[in-house]
Amino acid sequence: MKIATFRTNGAVGVGEILEDRGVVVPFDIPAQDAARGVLSLIGQDTLPGRKEPVSLSDVTLLAPVPRPVRNIFCVGKNYMEHAHEFSKSGFDSSAAAGAVPKNPIIFSKVPETVIAHESDVLIDSKASQAVDYEAELAVIIGKGGRAISPEDAYDHVWGYTIVNDVTARDLQGKYSQWLIGKSQDTFCPMGPWAVTRDSLDISDTAIRCHVNDELRQESNTSLLIFDIPTIIATISAGVTLMPGDVIATGTPAGVGIGFEPPRYLKPGDNVSIEIEGIGTLRNNFRAIGG
Amino acid sequence: MKIATFRTNGAVGVGEILEDRGVVVPFDIPAQDAARGVLSLIGQDTLPGRKEPVSLSDVTLLAPVPRPVRNIFCVGKNYMEHAHEFSKSGFDSSAAAGAVPKNPIIFSKVPETVIAHESDVLIDSKASQAVDYEAELAVIIGKGGRAISPEDAYDHVWGYTIVNDVTARDLQGKYSQWLIGKSQDTFCPMGPWAVTRDSLDISDTAIRCHVNDELRQESNTSLLIFDIPTIIATISAGVTLMPGDVIATGTPAGVGIGFEPPRYLKPGDNVSIEIEGIGTLRNNFRAIGG
Repeated sequence: MKIATFRTNGAVGVGEILEDRGVVVPFDIPAQDAARGVLSLIGQDTLPGRKEPVSLSDVTLLAPVPRPVRNIFCVGKNYMEHAHEFSKSGFDSSAAAGAVPKNPIIFSKVPETVIAHESDVLIDSKASQAVDYEAELAVIIGKGGRAISPEDAYDHVWGYTIVNDVTARDLQGKYSQWLIGKSQDTFCPMGPWAVTRDSLDISDTAIRCHVNDELRQESNTSLLIFDIPTIIATISAGVTLMPGDVIATGTPAGVGIGFEPPRYLKPGDNVSIEIEGIGTLRNNFRAIGG
Repeated sequence: MKIATFRTNGAVGVGEILEDRGVVVPFDIPAQDAARGVLSLIGQDTLPGRKEPVSLSDVTLLAPVPRPVRNIFCVGKNYMEHAHEFSKSGFDSSAAAGAVPKNPIIFSKVPETVIAHESDVLIDSKASQAVDYEAELAVIIGKGGRAISPEDAYDHVWGYTIVNDVTARDLQGKYSQWLIGKSQDTFCPMGPWAVTRDSLDISDTAIRCHVNDELRQESNTSLLIFDIPTIIATISAGVTLMPGDVIATGTPAGVGIGFEPPRYLKPGDNVSIEIEGIGTLRNNFRAIGG
């Protein structure tokens, strides 16, 4: 099931997307709950009742989780070929430990970085000269917990979405820890909607990223170095996971820093990320104030 | 002015601490606001009215910010001698960039790590064998903003408190990025209360840390490598700061990892951190489930 957060006639709603009919079927939930996006459905035993379908052309999509409950967990260097391209780039403060990580590299992005499908990512040339894209599958946690075993991990997953883990490469290198380079305002496009756990075969899901019309990243979630159960077990070993936590699972090879010379994003560029079974997340990049 | 969050007779309050009289004078604010701790006062032009004083012996102190609005920003290796001791330890994944950082190292801790003065920090031997203390001055942001200049930075500070940036050294090294090692459950004692900005001379404030009865850390905020205006300018250059953000400014030399062999914390240890002009934050460490 595809579930979107959206705005129509000034009100925020949450509903099921029926792509073949070109509509969203809103759930009948109070406005203050709907403002939390798909988080409003997490922890509910049954789905709420439904209202009349609304044409997708009459709604503006919002991020499925408009404001995560805390910083988004992210995994670094989690596809083999990307680990190599990033390690060679000179921006990898973790390169001394080897190109391919022996353990998951886990960092965070502040929740206010999240923007919707078709919202603009802002390039601030005063802050960064090296803005890059990273196509990623993101996990939305449904049931919190501590010391979750890999065997039980999927019971804690509510669903999935797409994020673009936009990164200021210069800041990622300059500040050694990655928080600042990953947390620049607007640097987490998320969407276009979420899908529930049962909708996606995580053992074989294609992921592609185009910059403008050029295919830059093409891989499959089967190639994750550390799979979703391992990531969930690693974080929750000592950090209690919460319902609504978002975990971005890492990006495949083909990011801008992997080219020589690097191909950073410029105002006017468009990045679209497709994950089979979810959809396509598309965002323009523009100069701040531009 | 010293301002505490506390519980008395089952209700949460926020009030001014008058240490010489041994009382807290609660502000007259609704219970749901008080649950946010000192954040309930941020953005108010004037302080709320006051109620009858309550003896400190009749209240349980809570963390001044019981639940920060998002992950706590933290600065790494921000005192010269500590930068050297940590760099030598073998746990420093940023050591390749040199012992003393050229730019602030900024990472985060999840907000749910926060616990109160005299609450117990839990040592989970299944998760970490190397739990360490870090005495730190923390800044509480009052006015948000982006691209804040160093000259304007103090206008954005609401006040200060003490945190113990408890760290699982083994996890800090193992996962390369520091989020997991810093975010273990209960790993951010904060308190005993906050002080407003005008109460502290940040150019000359002593900071001390005792483990049991032994003095381990003794320094002064004048020795920060990157001062508070620099830290605020660095983060806010591209990451909009929010009212209520907490920034831990880094720890001086004398942490457990600096000894040879390292002196990690054991169940039964007590860590007390004193910052002149604020007070003393004291916490016992105990085995999880113990």
